[in-house]
Formats: sequence, C-alpha cells, structure tokens
Amino acid sequence: MRLYDNLDSGNCYKVRLLLAQLGREYEVVEVDTDKGGTRTPEFLAINPNGRVPVLETDDGVYLAESNAILWYLAERTEFLPNSAIGRAQVLQWMLFEQYSHEPYVAVARYITRHLPPDHPRRAELPERRKQGRAAFGVMETHLQSRRFFVDDTYSLADIALYAYSHVADQGGFDLAPFPAVSRWLERVAAQPGYITMTARPG
Amino acid sequence: MRLYDNLDSGNCYKVRLLLAQLGREYEVVEVDTDKGGTRTPEFLAINPNGRVPVLETDDGVYLAESNAILWYLAERTEFLPNSAIGRAQVLQWMLFEQYSHEPYVAVARYITRHLPPDHPRRAELPERRKQGRAAFGVMETHLQSRRFFVDDTYSLADIALYAYSHVADQGGFDLAPFPAVSRWLERVAAQPGYITMTARPG
Repeated sequence: MRLYDNLDSGNCYKVRLLLAQLGREYEVVEVDTDKGGTRTPEFLAINPNGRVPVLETDDGVYLAESNAILWYLAERTEFLPNSAIGRAQVLQWMLFEQYSHEPYVAVARYITRHLPPDHPRRAELPERRKQGRAAFGVMETHLQSRRFFVDDTYSLADIALYAYSHVADQGGFDLAPFPAVSRWLERVAAQPGYITMTARPG
Repeated sequence: MRLYDNLDSGNCYKVRLLLAQLGREYEVVEVDTDKGGTRTPEFLAINPNGRVPVLETDDGVYLAESNAILWYLAERTEFLPNSAIGRAQVLQWMLFEQYSHEPYVAVARYITRHLPPDHPRRAELPERRKQGRAAFGVMETHLQSRRFFVDDTYSLADIALYAYSHVADQGGFDLAPFPAVSRWLERVAAQPGYITMTARPG
C-alpha cells in the first residue's frame, strides 16, 4: 500500500495512527500541500477533489477521504464494533467530525499555522473558534459518562476525533473547559501501538 | 422506527428516500428547524449536536447524521456493495458530500430560501456558490464515464449526493455546465421506489 500523506495534516495522521496500530506496512509519498502539491495534474488524476490523504491499495485503487480510508482498513478488526448500530454510531461520530469539528478546529489551526500574520482569512478565526468550542461541548457532554465514543471501547470514532482535537491548542483553543475531553485524549494516547503525529513509519 | 424529520431538509430526504425504496414503515416527527425546533432542551437530549434527521430505532437508540442513518438501514442490502473497497468508495463519496458539497450547495439553498433578503449571511453566497460549482465539477468528471458513483450501480452514494444536487437551482446553481450530473439526476429519479422530496410516507 502507498499513502499520499502530509506530516502536518491531522486527516493524514488518522491513517498513519491506525496503520501503526494494525501493524501494517506501507510506503509514504509526502505531498507539499502548502506549495500546491494537491493541485498538480498528476495529483488531481489520483484525487479529483485535490486533498490528502489518498490510499493506493494493493490492487492499485486510489481511495480518498480519511474516514473512508480508516473504514476500509478496519473492517473486521477490533477497531469497529460487531453490531450494526455500533458501526452506525462510529460513522455518526466520523461524520460529526467532518461536518461539525474539522471545518472549525482543523481550519483554525491551518489558518493560525500556515497563513501569514496579515492574511485576510485570519478574520475567520473568531467564528471558527466559536464553532469549534461548540463541537468540543458536544464531545464533553458525551464523554462525561463514557471512556470512549462508542461501546466504551477504542474505535475509529476515537481516532477520527483525536487527530485534530489533540493539537487544538495550535489553533488557539483552550481545552481547560472540557475536562472529560482532556481525560479522553490521555486515554487515546495510552492505547497500544499509539504513535505521535510526527512519527514516521519504519 | 421514528424519524425526526424536516420536509425541506435534503439531509432528511435522503433517509425518507431510502426508507421508501426499502419499503420500511416508520413514524414521522416534523421538527420546525426555522423556529428553533432543534435547539429545545427536549431535542438536544435526543441529539446534542442539534440537527435533523435523527432516527429512533426499534430498540430506542437515537442515531444522528443522515449518512450514518443511511448506512444503518442499508447494511446487507442492495444499496451497499459486497466488496470492502466498494463500501469504502461509497463512504468516500458520502464524506465528500458532507465536507465538499453540502456546506456549499445546501447552505447556499438555505440562505436563499430561509433567510430574509437583507440578511447579512447573503454576503456568503458568492463564495458558497463558487465552492459548490467546484463540487459539481468533481462529480461531472467522475460521472462522464459512469452511470452511478460506485460500481456502476445505484447505492447510498447516489442517494447522499442526489438530495441537495437535484434542488441546487433553489440555491442559485445552474447545472447546464454539468451535463453528466444532469443525466445522472434523471437516472436516480427513474429508480424503483423513488419518491420526491415533498412526498410523505403512507
């Protein structure tokens, strides 16, 4: 397998973390997203939506969308529940992550870290941070009585939500008002096979 | 089963369309999203993220996120592929829908239809429409050589992308530059058991 990857992308880190925990070997192609690496004709032939990560499977199929890649890799493993309702709840949280969390928590971090201090998109930060705090509030409520998001067991839902939550401070978020989220972040980091965001395979 | 629903929501229509095509019976609870119906304490107890649709299963579990509900209802039916890569590709397109399509195509429609003519959010429309056209461009490229999104067979991917695409004109989109998308819309509307967006069960 080959992963079209970017080391600073939480969406890519989700896939690297799961691959490490599954003990799978793979090649990495680092894509320089800041320099237009996802907008070249060659990359757009791989993913017409122009985003990393993309997984090239052993059969040569290019699969995009981080959470779809997680699902492909984790079917019939301990990282997905056995029950239909459990699998649907994992998906519910992965879709929450992409719709109500990532556009605020990850994009605030992107603007903060990757755009110059005078960039006009910095005007978006107050609203992005407000919506991001709302997402952490939903997570806090859920985690007050639970160790992990679904079935009290570590799953893809935790991997998907951990990736950008654990570096939210880099986007100007303070997680002190969300103690259940903070304790959950520690539980995820204590899982077998855990790797940090900047760890490379091999 | 009971569906917390809103007749004008494409996300809710996805679920109604699949339920009709599966021949499943269910109760409807209409939620007035324009009048804060998703922000009451009673509704937030059902979905802390404050959005419709929510499916209450026969076991009394509340499941949120339209595409997670579709998945729950369609596992082991003809609406999902048999292969792991096929299922992952359906998810890829459902995640594309929620991240790269719905925030532009659906939100432009919402602003156009539900907010007053002098509302400040109308300033968002040019950018929302630009990004929505980009999403239709990705779909057009994919559909130029295909009848449906995955495995050339009607699936959840088509349902998820159809819901807001087929009413994009209500958000100020012109699909004339996307003829393959337009032909695909007609193919979806010709599927057995198809119902329109304003059709109610039973």
